[in-house]
Amino acid sequence: MSKSSEREPNDLHKLRHSLAHVLAQAALKLWPGTKITIGPPIDYGCYYDFLFQKPISEDDFPAIEKEMTKIIHQAQTFRCDDLTPTDAKKFWKNRHQPFKVELIEDLEKNEGVTSVSHYANIGPKGEETFVDLCRGGHVESFKEIPVDCFKIMSIAGAYWRGDEKREQLTRIYVAAFPTKAELDQYFKNREEAAKYDHRVLGREMHLFVLSEIVGLGLPMLAPKGAIIRQELENWIREELKRRGYSFAYTPNIGRADLYKKSGHLDFFRENIFPLLEADDSAYVLKPMNCPHHMEVYRSEPHSYRDLPVRIAEFGTVYRYEKSGQVGGLTRVRGFTQDDAHIFMRPDQMQQEIEGILDLSFHIYRTLGFNDFTLRLSLHDPAKREQYVGSDENWRMAEETLRKALDAMKLPYVDGVGEAAFYGPKVDLIVRDAFSREWQLGTIPQVDYNMPARFDLHYIDEHGEKKQPIMMHRAIFGSFERFIGVLIEHFKGLFPLWLAPVQVAILPVAEVHEVYAHDLEARLKREGVRVVFLYHTESLGKRIREGETWKIPYLLVMGDKEIAEHSVTVRNVKTKKQVVVPVEEFVSTMTQDIRDRKLEASIGIST
Amino acid sequence: MSKSSEREPNDLHKLRHSLAHVLAQAALKLWPGTKITIGPPIDYGCYYDFLFQKPISEDDFPAIEKEMTKIIHQAQTFRCDDLTPTDAKKFWKNRHQPFKVELIEDLEKNEGVTSVSHYANIGPKGEETFVDLCRGGHVESFKEIPVDCFKIMSIAGAYWRGDEKREQLTRIYVAAFPTKAELDQYFKNREEAAKYDHRVLGREMHLFVLSEIVGLGLPMLAPKGAIIRQELENWIREELKRRGYSFAYTPNIGRADLYKKSGHLDFFRENIFPLLEADDSAYVLKPMNCPHHMEVYRSEPHSYRDLPVRIAEFGTVYRYEKSGQVGGLTRVRGFTQDDAHIFMRPDQMQQEIEGILDLSFHIYRTLGFNDFTLRLSLHDPAKREQYVGSDENWRMAEETLRKALDAMKLPYVDGVGEAAFYGPKVDLIVRDAFSREWQLGTIPQVDYNMPARFDLHYIDEHGEKKQPIMMHRAIFGSFERFIGVLIEHFKGLFPLWLAPVQVAILPVAEVHEVYAHDLEARLKREGVRVVFLYHTESLGKRIREGETWKIPYLLVMGDKEIAEHSVTVRNVKTKKQVVVPVEEFVSTMTQDIRDRKLEASIGIST
Repeated sequence: MSKSSEREPNDLHKLRHSLAHVLAQAALKLWPGTKITIGPPIDYGCYYDFLFQKPISEDDFPAIEKEMTKIIHQAQTFRCDDLTPTDAKKFWKNRHQPFKVELIEDLEKNEGVTSVSHYANIGPKGEETFVDLCRGGHVESFKEIPVDCFKIMSIAGAYWRGDEKREQLTRIYVAAFPTKAELDQYFKNREEAAKYDHRVLGREMHLFVLSEIVGLGLPMLAPKGAIIRQELENWIREELKRRGYSFAYTPNIGRADLYKKSGHLDFFRENIFPLLEADDSAYVLKPMNCPHHMEVYRSEPHSYRDLPVRIAEFGTVYRYEKSGQVGGLTRVRGFTQDDAHIFMRPDQMQQEIEGILDLSFHIYRTLGFNDFTLRLSLHDPAKREQYVGSDENWRMAEETLRKALDAMKLPYVDGVGEAAFYGPKVDLIVRDAFSREWQLGTIPQVDYNMPARFDLHYIDEHGEKKQPIMMHRAIFGSFERFIGVLIEHFKGLFPLWLAPVQVAILPVAEVHEVYAHDLEARLKREGVRVVFLYHTESLGKRIREGETWKIPYLLVMGDKEIAEHSVTVRNVKTKKQVVVPVEEFVSTMTQDIRDRKLEASIGIST
Repeated sequence: MSKSSEREPNDLHKLRHSLAHVLAQAALKLWPGTKITIGPPIDYGCYYDFLFQKPISEDDFPAIEKEMTKIIHQAQTFRCDDLTPTDAKKFWKNRHQPFKVELIEDLEKNEGVTSVSHYANIGPKGEETFVDLCRGGHVESFKEIPVDCFKIMSIAGAYWRGDEKREQLTRIYVAAFPTKAELDQYFKNREEAAKYDHRVLGREMHLFVLSEIVGLGLPMLAPKGAIIRQELENWIREELKRRGYSFAYTPNIGRADLYKKSGHLDFFRENIFPLLEADDSAYVLKPMNCPHHMEVYRSEPHSYRDLPVRIAEFGTVYRYEKSGQVGGLTRVRGFTQDDAHIFMRPDQMQQEIEGILDLSFHIYRTLGFNDFTLRLSLHDPAKREQYVGSDENWRMAEETLRKALDAMKLPYVDGVGEAAFYGPKVDLIVRDAFSREWQLGTIPQVDYNMPARFDLHYIDEHGEKKQPIMMHRAIFGSFERFIGVLIEHFKGLFPLWLAPVQVAILPVAEVHEVYAHDLEARLKREGVRVVFLYHTESLGKRIREGETWKIPYLLVMGDKEIAEHSVTVRNVKTKKQVVVPVEEFVSTMTQDIRDRKLEASIGIST
């Protein structure tokens, strides 16, 4: 499905991973004594975490890039050496690299490895230039790395292993693409995206409110933003009803016992707000809707004929993020999911997965997201203790999900360690208009565990109690985050059906106001969201205002329009202006809205 | 507006209040040494709180009623004596009635009275039979009280002054109506209402779920109940949009500072859940939406031309009720209000009040509530410390509200002490199909205080900063409570547009299934909520099932119907059955739904 790169994703992964070796080699060359850790590829390049003896800054970037270019020009190759853990630890101790020693100790402890791969770079004279502990996945030779395709982006602090009690490291981010053109495009997109940051546009367009006294990470949707959410809600509610979903309303709190039973209190505790101690029980501000939906399912008996039962809710949940890590609509503490839980028989699983994927693609494509990546998110066997449920259930869930994806002939990548604590899932990652990746929905997530914990059942055709399989799914993910992404994706210029204000009416002079008000009334009767811009400002100024507010259509009305019973329509996106009969404008516009068209039909060409 | 009684409300009030004197006189006669307290009228009669020397029980009711009848037959009259507080306290001390002494002490302290009214009953021989401290409002003589128009209902424990640290008293409830027929009707309604208790019907119809592990007072709407809420939401959202409201979405928590600023932490603390202590601040589980809406208003500048700004939200709030006091959908800890806050100029107040009342009457009448009482809820000057804001603002708010009600020529009663801590309001009390009173909406509540606390303003026509007046309002009040009231009001048999399942299709035999499925598909395309009842059960049994589930229309399809392209429609409410052409059925039914008709049109007569 991915069209973002000419190469296979695997080649790009190799390129970026190899570049991390180049970066580490350069850092050691420039600052011997630096402690190295790990350097994975990321969606726009790679990074590497170092413990430097003295701090580095952006001023050092040119020197690092120069050194990296030199190393690439040497066309170094890779050699794989398998060492016993004992030899490997000795090797790294001798080189004074304690983080590497720790990594090997963990591999021994958690995975019981008897051999650890190391990759050595071999220079032009056959000499060993650099060695790293690594699972592999490199280019054959650095000559495969175009020297003009990478750039050091930034540095940031990062704790060793993400643990704030451990050493603070310096992370160096590198952007890397297969070609110079793609690298340039990436920077162009980045620059564009910064201009259309949803926090900037959200303020300019009055879409949402961040209030210090309301609290951190608790954005409120102002009237104009609320319109976008209502349109999204109406749309997905309509789709869900058509697809056989039912709805529930559940509270935002639940007893601590409920979350003990579901496992959240043990496995998700760090994301849960401090408890509320009431007179009868401790209560949890709900981090997820699933436990409540379990109780809704459990409240009536179910026959095999009633399944699947699909319970949806626009459920507002709260996740306890550190106060320093929140901002805008995309990093929040409180958000509303377009959540649903599907309870099904084993033989219905594939059909349900297909239904969910079909709905997802329909939703995303309607909004102009055409570039998807699917990830099959699996548990990490090395961290078995972080997951609930039996090995057998995990195996069955992961296998069935893979089988379904294969049967649907959808390309996907494996994401080991990306599963939730209660089950594997398919994540859908989309690229927006700036080619940035967003993980929006989870579609679907298989769960054998929670139905067991809640003792859910249905009566099968033989009259016997059976346990349903459950799937979690969310298409938008969170309304807040999704609206944040949409603001940037559309650069504030929403499709007609989503635009908070759809039309501005601009009478040329006072004498045209009566006629203009007639049109306003006509449009309002059709449910169109209209603003009337009085002649007290100049026409040019009002047009600029309409453009700033990102109103899709500006309607200018003067003598000519009144005489012809027409309207001059300015399409703010194309900046084209056309004259159309009033009735044609109304019918075309309302049809575009009903069809949820991505591009407004009028004013495409002059 | 009230049609419930032939007499003026004042007469009924006098009758009930007088009966409280009769009850107290009877109690003292039967059990000398009993301590008397207070005995107000209530919506179905009156009560009186006593401290008995030994407990009484239901077994004593006949004796009390007999004594009361005897007293009424004596045709006692009332004589008013005004005493100085000193004389009055002496009088009650001599009679060993400490609660009366306490009441007089409070009147002196809080209201600075120099004279307190006492009412003595005068027996047939001119003798004084009973005296009570009382503000008056009685019948002239007990002969105005029909002896067959009252009945002792129940006893209950009640703390003196509602304070659990004070004496526990015994409250005796008496039902009292102007006529025997009205008393009988009251008991009939009560019996009917018990049969249609929303907790019973809610379980039978799977409308909502009470789960012990989710928590107390936290009902969840199951899929069928969620349909009712969605229909109510869609309806009121449509009405609000038409009436110029905009919407907001705000979180369920807010910083403690926010509620300190609004005054809730000081004046509403007992109804607030224990605080959530996060890393950056303490957070409150929101008991009201107003502080958040203040912040939404404050987030952009407003001109006098932009007002009124009407911000609506279906806002879920939490009130900390004692765990023993919750149950069903009507006494809950968490609920969603159809809330709105209107920010306006002083000159817009009357028009806004009219708009709110108009909307309320439209909503309630559409649902078949035709019997309203309006209460102008004022502050209690004796408890000034329980209210925030200046005297001047309270006076202005109360006067303006009264002026508006008078201008609209709406009858209303005064409710001293019924105001919220931040402002006076109009409460609308409706009577349901069982003549029970429900205070549903608050329409509207004037607030000069909160805009001042939040430093809200708009720019007036002279470019000067002015403070807007705010009104709080909620039409349904709480969706949960309102749905509970509707379940009972409709006895589970909702109007077509609200019914969770609108139609059941019952093919007579297997051969009729194909045709029946065609009709099912036809109806589903129209958005009708259909259930298909297969021929595996007898037709009689399926009809009984459809009736139990309160499905408005049962459609029977057999040979005759297929031949005629008709359908046999059973109206479950009227139990009448008619044969109508399929197309006529579909168009009539969908039109009824669109019109939100109270009664289904088909099967009214055979």
